[in-house]
Amino acid sequence: MTDTSAPGREPDPAAPLGVAVVGAGYWGPNLVRNFQSSPRFRLRWLCDLDVARAQRVLGGYSTVRATSDYAAVLADPSVDAVAVATPAGTHLDIALAALRAGKHVLVEKPLAATYADGARLVAEAEERGLTLMCDHTYCYTPAVGRIRELVRSGELGEIHFVDSIRINLGLVQKDIDVMWDLAPHDLSILDFILPDNVEPVAVAAHGADPIGAGQACVAYLTLQLNTGAIAHVHVNWLSPVKVRTTMVGGAKRTLIWDDLNPAQRVAIFDRGVDLAAPQEIGADERRDMLISYRSGDMIAPAIGEKEALRSMVDEFADAIRERRAPLTDGRAGLRVLDILEAASRSLEFRGAVVGLRAGR
Amino acid sequence: MTDTSAPGREPDPAAPLGVAVVGAGYWGPNLVRNFQSSPRFRLRWLCDLDVARAQRVLGGYSTVRATSDYAAVLADPSVDAVAVATPAGTHLDIALAALRAGKHVLVEKPLAATYADGARLVAEAEERGLTLMCDHTYCYTPAVGRIRELVRSGELGEIHFVDSIRINLGLVQKDIDVMWDLAPHDLSILDFILPDNVEPVAVAAHGADPIGAGQACVAYLTLQLNTGAIAHVHVNWLSPVKVRTTMVGGAKRTLIWDDLNPAQRVAIFDRGVDLAAPQEIGADERRDMLISYRSGDMIAPAIGEKEALRSMVDEFADAIRERRAPLTDGRAGLRVLDILEAASRSLEFRGAVVGLRAGR
Amino acid sequence: MTDTSAPGREPDPAAPLGVAVVGAGYWGPNLVRNFQSSPRFRLRWLCDLDVARAQRVLGGYSTVRATSDYAAVLADPSVDAVAVATPAGTHLDIALAALRAGKHVLVEKPLAATYADGARLVAEAEERGLTLMCDHTYCYTPAVGRIRELVRSGELGEIHFVDSIRINLGLVQKDIDVMWDLAPHDLSILDFILPDNVEPVAVAAHGADPIGAGQACVAYLTLQLNTGAIAHVHVNWLSPVKVRTTMVGGAKRTLIWDDLNPAQRVAIFDRGVDLAAPQEIGADERRDMLISYRSGDMIAPAIGEKEALRSMVDEFADAIRERRAPLTDGRAGLRVLDILEAASRSLEFRGAVVGLRAGR
Amino acid sequence: MTDTSAPGREPDPAAPLGVAVVGAGYWGPNLVRNFQSSPRFRLRWLCDLDVARAQRVLGGYSTVRATSDYAAVLADPSVDAVAVATPAGTHLDIALAALRAGKHVLVEKPLAATYADGARLVAEAEERGLTLMCDHTYCYTPAVGRIRELVRSGELGEIHFVDSIRINLGLVQKDIDVMWDLAPHDLSILDFILPDNVEPVAVAAHGADPIGAGQACVAYLTLQLNTGAIAHVHVNWLSPVKVRTTMVGGAKRTLIWDDLNPAQRVAIFDRGVDLAAPQEIGADERRDMLISYRSGDMIAPAIGEKEALRSMVDEFADAIRERRAPLTDGRAGLRVLDILEAASRSLEFRGAVVGLRAGR
Repeated sequence: MTDTSAPGREPDPAAPLGVAVVGAGYWGPNLVRNFQSSPRFRLRWLCDLDVARAQRVLGGYSTVRATSDYAAVLADPSVDAVAVATPAGTHLDIALAALRAGKHVLVEKPLAATYADGARLVAEAEERGLTLMCDHTYCYTPAVGRIRELVRSGELGEIHFVDSIRINLGLVQKDIDVMWDLAPHDLSILDFILPDNVEPVAVAAHGADPIGAGQACVAYLTLQLNTGAIAHVHVNWLSPVKVRTTMVGGAKRTLIWDDLNPAQRVAIFDRGVDLAAPQEIGADERRDMLISYRSGDMIAPAIGEKEALRSMVDEFADAIRERRAPLTDGRAGLRVLDILEAASRSLEFRGAVVGLRAGR
Repeated sequence: MTDTSAPGREPDPAAPLGVAVVGAGYWGPNLVRNFQSSPRFRLRWLCDLDVARAQRVLGGYSTVRATSDYAAVLADPSVDAVAVATPAGTHLDIALAALRAGKHVLVEKPLAATYADGARLVAEAEERGLTLMCDHTYCYTPAVGRIRELVRSGELGEIHFVDSIRINLGLVQKDIDVMWDLAPHDLSILDFILPDNVEPVAVAAHGADPIGAGQACVAYLTLQLNTGAIAHVHVNWLSPVKVRTTMVGGAKRTLIWDDLNPAQRVAIFDRGVDLAAPQEIGADERRDMLISYRSGDMIAPAIGEKEALRSMVDEFADAIRERRAPLTDGRAGLRVLDILEAASRSLEFRGAVVGLRAGR
Repeated sequence: MTDTSAPGREPDPAAPLGVAVVGAGYWGPNLVRNFQSSPRFRLRWLCDLDVARAQRVLGGYSTVRATSDYAAVLADPSVDAVAVATPAGTHLDIALAALRAGKHVLVEKPLAATYADGARLVAEAEERGLTLMCDHTYCYTPAVGRIRELVRSGELGEIHFVDSIRINLGLVQKDIDVMWDLAPHDLSILDFILPDNVEPVAVAAHGADPIGAGQACVAYLTLQLNTGAIAHVHVNWLSPVKVRTTMVGGAKRTLIWDDLNPAQRVAIFDRGVDLAAPQEIGADERRDMLISYRSGDMIAPAIGEKEALRSMVDEFADAIRERRAPLTDGRAGLRVLDILEAASRSLEFRGAVVGLRAGR
Repeated sequence: MTDTSAPGREPDPAAPLGVAVVGAGYWGPNLVRNFQSSPRFRLRWLCDLDVARAQRVLGGYSTVRATSDYAAVLADPSVDAVAVATPAGTHLDIALAALRAGKHVLVEKPLAATYADGARLVAEAEERGLTLMCDHTYCYTPAVGRIRELVRSGELGEIHFVDSIRINLGLVQKDIDVMWDLAPHDLSILDFILPDNVEPVAVAAHGADPIGAGQACVAYLTLQLNTGAIAHVHVNWLSPVKVRTTMVGGAKRTLIWDDLNPAQRVAIFDRGVDLAAPQEIGADERRDMLISYRSGDMIAPAIGEKEALRSMVDEFADAIRERRAPLTDGRAGLRVLDILEAASRSLEFRGAVVGLRAGR
């Protein structure tokens, strides 16, 4: 269906896209399941260095082929796209090879191990006119979709603060700290929901490794936004309870997203502090008289329960077919890498504020 | 009962201590109620610049005297002790006058407006052999008492992290920021529960004033402890929901205190990440093999519901009678002021880490 | 202020009503506190057979008189009203004496030990033109007030079911079972919120005394309403957790009141099952095609936090002054007694359905 | 592998059991998934009258055969067992045919549409020495397994009461009421956890059909146990929120199972009311002095998260291989049918108590 001499050629819209998943570890099986259930795709291969593991993931009833031969996958003309679910350190090589073979590419978060690597992938895809998408899964949950609408439509008013907590008894990683493991979720969500003219400009990070694991197991990131607003992320591998809560405070309303409360994932509060605008204030000492408090209703909107990964793979297909950037494209992945790298530098320098690269 | 020529003289143990409350604003009425219900005290006066307000607090059925004449209160020999519930900026003058009149003194948090002021009060009280106590109310809740036992007895193991959240739609203050308003609670609790050999050595603070109130309405404090552990405090006046949760992570167990959940204020989790001690590890690359996870039971101990303020006033009486330092003495108040001042400096310098004065 | 020859005479609207509280046990102190804080009343006496207990309730700073001489209380012309907070078995004698002395009367729930006793009180008060009020405290909570509005205004649509749970580790009573102890709350709330044309017509009760306490410690009441709707009450002294939840299901919306969740006491759900009206259905077998489901938003309205007892005593004063029936008058107390007596008969006869007296 | 002349012949223990699923509706897909993931089984067929639906359930990548020809399935010697996930009214015919073809049978709850039908299946299976199992899925959750241990080991003490709530906005069924739809879960759990010498002896049921659906949409069942204990079940299709909570009250401890709280599914409370034994009581009037209250800790045991259906299919395989009754055998399904039929009769007769057939 695709050949390397004509990369990015629009496939037959009547036919499903051929796809291969690379990596049969933690996340790969979820991609396998969702590509299989989407009529937009035809899953061709599951590729893993450990072919037995790939076979186990497919199970005893599948017609999908398992392989450890990535070159064969890339050589298969029925493969239009490759989904990479391997460790971050391998993303550059695997994704680059796929792009060079003319395949569209979906990469697990983080996009790459470094900003520089990620930038190479973005450049390669853009040169070739191929779709490069980062699997920022949470952006495809119905809840985050709704939050994005609420924030970008102005229903919350100007954003004042964002506070995100993502903690649980996590698998301590050998090669990456808790910040690189968990914060990409919060940072990609932040990137996704903020209006185009609002962006982080600097980050400070504090962390600790109280168990002697060799890297931070508890970390706090504080992001300064260009509007004066503040965003804060708490990630923690040592918490005995699982918390996944994000509060988005706005001038008009404040919302709380509790991802672990299926009965009420998003709650929008018409409560807050109002301050008369400066020009309306005669003298500084009268300021306190002009503070008022709203204590209105809370609304928990009905939100559907569509699986995020399914929406994500559908977006991947649509972006390929429509030859447009996906909602979470390589550049979004790059912006997240920028913050992660700056946060790592801040951690090294005991919490010093580190500026971010400009521009969304 | 007391005269100024013999300050600190042990009162007749059979008789209740005469006490006067200064300040009939937000907190004073609570002190009035608790001094009245304690047989250890006899409430003599409620003093406020606005005597009508003091009268309203006492109500139409009380035999307690209201006054705006503080000098008369200090001159009353039946007054053994003075409880100060006025704005922080007035603590120094009011408390100093009381100490100089030979009265024992209880002061609302924070002890004073500055560390220097607080230090003057501590010195004055020590010179005169009078009791100076800081009303760190939360330390007298049954929950915090239990937490102190659990931490100091070693039941949690070495403390790895403390994470405290105290947020709600708060009254934006004219003269102090959210950090000075709310963090004294978390910092006094931290001071109270930590073992004697564990203490904060530095602090960084990040804040924002997104509504233009003139001071930070959202703030994050990160404390570095001398053991390598980390403590973090989130205080926020703009949250539409009230959260008061503290997590104390230890090497053996982790506890969560949720002050707003009367059915289960304290939960102790036998869950965590264990790492084999360094000497047991042959090579660095084998470290990941030596991580193990505990996923044991949770226990929510039965905890009584005694009012904290009542325990606090009883401790004040006992400390006076037994001529010993109260559990939350002036020095505890001073340590909290030290952190608050350092945190304010950090805020000014965009989150720079600021060292604390040495020694508990 | 009042004399027995002119019962019910409207008191001077400028002066507070003189009131005496009878009973210094569990509930009396709450009445004492609220009468003291209401400018509409002047508390004259606290009367208890055990005068020392009454004195302890008043505390060491009160100008209110304690007494064990009820006759003296009734003879005091400055006493306009008597509040009775004694065991149910004594309500008849105490309240009757007060009415005969020309006093307005407030009685703790249940109104009396039997329907017959309660009816005597109602008759006596009506003959004398005196106010007889039953302290159905929950009806004066802001939450129940709001629920009453929502139900009676038709915002919920026709009521389909009411399910109420009131369980906790309760004090096992010597003389009354769990139904008489706790269900009066639920039954008085039901009586209060239902529209005038909706009423219970029959009750069945099931109970158990598994600990051998001598009376039911667990009980379930099922009420049949005249509209075909069902109401159900679960009361239980043996539950280790406290639950106080009432669900009111309507044709348009359903609400849940959780009295133990101060952050969200009332939640109104725009969710439900809709059925096309019978005339719209051609054939019975097509019925299933005409069922539809709404899955709309939930709204938790902002509700104030005024103390119910304070609103209750204010209503008592207003009803006396305005010479009108209070919101929870003797007749409301009587309707609750009717259900309780029928439920007791049902318990005796293993859950047989027992009809209620007609008419609200 | 199996032939009809030798029903129940023990299959080769080294080989997986061949299985066919009948019914590709709501529940069938879950059985398909779990049989596929269990090495104890080899899924041979998915059979449905609508073969396209069966094909859709299998998806585009499966090697399992879809068919609408049940006779062909039964004629296939590689099919050792049949799992029936069709409407209850069809269970008798489908299961009977399978048993007569020498197949072991797993049937969705309820076992059959009537007690008489269920009894025929039990008799047929017993005569042929075949395994007949009822898929009481909840009994295979780790939580219910733990509860069974706690109850049957005596750790809770004698059971005093069981209170079960299973409500949500449910699919109103055309052919069965809410009791037959939802209560089988609670009744099968009750049957599973109670000690062998404790059993229900009578049931009363109250219900309502406030939306005019043609059958009860809200129902309450009260079960009398042979010990004097009480069990109560609330099932409801009209609740806007989903609740699945069971409280099991015992003489020593009480537990609460909240199936929707993954962080704390089971909580065991050392709280309760103790009564001195009768012989210790001198006189009846002293009884109240001998009541005491325990207010001890709560323990939430760590409980794994194994999928119940997977444990259920494994138990099916083990019971077949070991030629023993499965944990939830046909007789358990029959006991549940007995209660359901009695409850339906009670509903007809306005809540009259209906006795149950004797014997577990």
